[in-house]
Amino acid sequence: MIYLDNAATTAPDAGAVAAAMKYLQAEFYNPSALYRAGFSAHRAVEEARKNISALIAPQGGYELIFTASGSEADNQALFSSVRRGNFVTTEGEHAAVYNTAKELAKRGIEVRFAKLLADGRVDVADLLAKVDEKTSLVSVIHVNNETGAVNDVAEISARVKKASKAIFHSDGVQAFGKLPFTLGGGVDLYTISAHKIGGVRGVAALLRRKGCRLDPLVFGGGQENGLRSGTENTFAIKQFEFAAKKKFDRLHGDLEHVRALNRMAREALDERLFEIISSEEASPYILSVAAKGLRGEVLLHMLDDAGVMVGTGSACSSKNKYSRVIAACGWNERYAEGVLRLSFFASNTPEETERAVAVINECARKLAERMN
Amino acid sequence: MIYLDNAATTAPDAGAVAAAMKYLQAEFYNPSALYRAGFSAHRAVEEARKNISALIAPQGGYELIFTASGSEADNQALFSSVRRGNFVTTEGEHAAVYNTAKELAKRGIEVRFAKLLADGRVDVADLLAKVDEKTSLVSVIHVNNETGAVNDVAEISARVKKASKAIFHSDGVQAFGKLPFTLGGGVDLYTISAHKIGGVRGVAALLRRKGCRLDPLVFGGGQENGLRSGTENTFAIKQFEFAAKKKFDRLHGDLEHVRALNRMAREALDERLFEIISSEEASPYILSVAAKGLRGEVLLHMLDDAGVMVGTGSACSSKNKYSRVIAACGWNERYAEGVLRLSFFASNTPEETERAVAVINECARKLAERMN
Repeated sequence: MIYLDNAATTAPDAGAVAAAMKYLQAEFYNPSALYRAGFSAHRAVEEARKNISALIAPQGGYELIFTASGSEADNQALFSSVRRGNFVTTEGEHAAVYNTAKELAKRGIEVRFAKLLADGRVDVADLLAKVDEKTSLVSVIHVNNETGAVNDVAEISARVKKASKAIFHSDGVQAFGKLPFTLGGGVDLYTISAHKIGGVRGVAALLRRKGCRLDPLVFGGGQENGLRSGTENTFAIKQFEFAAKKKFDRLHGDLEHVRALNRMAREALDERLFEIISSEEASPYILSVAAKGLRGEVLLHMLDDAGVMVGTGSACSSKNKYSRVIAACGWNERYAEGVLRLSFFASNTPEETERAVAVINECARKLAERMN
Repeated sequence: MIYLDNAATTAPDAGAVAAAMKYLQAEFYNPSALYRAGFSAHRAVEEARKNISALIAPQGGYELIFTASGSEADNQALFSSVRRGNFVTTEGEHAAVYNTAKELAKRGIEVRFAKLLADGRVDVADLLAKVDEKTSLVSVIHVNNETGAVNDVAEISARVKKASKAIFHSDGVQAFGKLPFTLGGGVDLYTISAHKIGGVRGVAALLRRKGCRLDPLVFGGGQENGLRSGTENTFAIKQFEFAAKKKFDRLHGDLEHVRALNRMAREALDERLFEIISSEEASPYILSVAAKGLRGEVLLHMLDDAGVMVGTGSACSSKNKYSRVIAACGWNERYAEGVLRLSFFASNTPEETERAVAVINECARKLAERMN
């Protein structure tokens, strides 16, 4: 089987799992415990906090709060920051921001969704026009999880800060460890996650610019400096640290590798059958394509039978007929229903990419024939 | 080293870890993915849901929602249920309920804390007197995490239901897999956790009586039937399932074993130095004792040096000078400052318990001499 759904989840890095296993074994202790073994577990967590922070915020100025998932980090950022006034976000957000925005709207907050450009980036002029002195939070996804579209959040956040006193949050789950980026400028809160870069599930983090207000989402024993209660998941946190260090060490090489796979797929996909949705400027880790007039889900199952695993839109919101993000980019039903998402990782080879695309072309051709 | 702090966290069951490892390896797929490997991961999660539910709610009627921690499950239960009116809980709650109650009070909810009896159980008459037609939620801890005091939540919930329409929640983290108990009667919501019974951290669950209102705490992709978003932590969920099945299979044997250890410790502790706080009716998994006139933390460090790991009050709220729960039981400072919590697990042996208690007596004697 060829796995091209790495934006949904990646295989946990085996070396990082092995290195972290001791935290499920000899060093399983509770980091809040007062004896030395507890303190040693505490120090291991603090080391992970420092090391992961150094990857994404090397100039300092940010504090890292471990959460259990990117969704939790997004929810904490939004519920903490949006207390009154209005909330400005985009049509291109991950469900963890988008559906939380819908919930905030139910609770009486005015939510303003900025439009997307055809390539999936936010229309910055529209976003800025929606920000005013009553805006409490602006949230813009860094790399869209369906199209790979990259929003220049450093630039956008700086412009937002000029126009208002709003807090600026970005969901960086699909950017972290994949695109060269360090925190700074106007970004106050930033979400990262482990399991998209070889980390295990069960851990993610919210980065907070020092001084930026942040309230807990989960109250209790006061772990994470009072910002997120619950016994620290030492194993997952350490595995995240090891996987992230490895990914950042290889970030540029991996990017070139994945860029080559992406280019290969773009060129080899049959243009009579497919429309490429992701722009050339998108993150090469994600390639969305539309099988013209075909049902993506049907095609996905044919591919599965033929040994290729891909996504359709976002695996996180697979219940809708077609993706709201693809629709927001302006694609009509004929394309939107046929969307496949190919997402790469360093572990994918040129050979399997070539083979996968041949299978994709072949299945789409068969399905198109069957439809006529 | 002898580990007697199992109420803080237990060593993950090695067999259950080994059996679940494949979900970090060959079967790492996202359960929301539409290809067969994703569906198979989804089925594995549903199987775990069914099997864990069958342990705690064998008669059915309950639905299990996986969360990342007991704290998260408690927070979800409280924030979902307490929308208006008043909230009745006890002075003996875990920080995840107690501090969430404090937060609800800040948000304008009237919170009423029922008193404790000297042994740490809630004063049921006081609790019932505090419940009225405006009570939206009653939350009573099943087994107190510091004293081991057992509240008869089946009986208490039934009486609450007679007196009001309140939702009834119980934090069952220290009861689950340890005391014979199955859900039913008036209990609407019930929190369980993996890492107190040989499970790994990063997974816990909230049981909900079918028909009882429950809102998400984390919004997003709609996992867990829309009640808790975030990619399912398949490895942790399966390891939880395996560890829980094992613990329930041995529940009665383990209980007898731990009861014997507890009795041995009670009898061997030097009564000139220690006052036993936990009553004879408490869960034998927890034995709280007070070193008269001594500082528990100092004693803890001496014990650590001598090879014995124990807790002081709750590891989850180790910042206060002494435990609010112990104080609420009516113990004055002379005792409350000297509290040690010994907490057992099936893996503890009579020999190490005997040795640990000898060390505890010896250290307390030395410390008492030093103080005079």
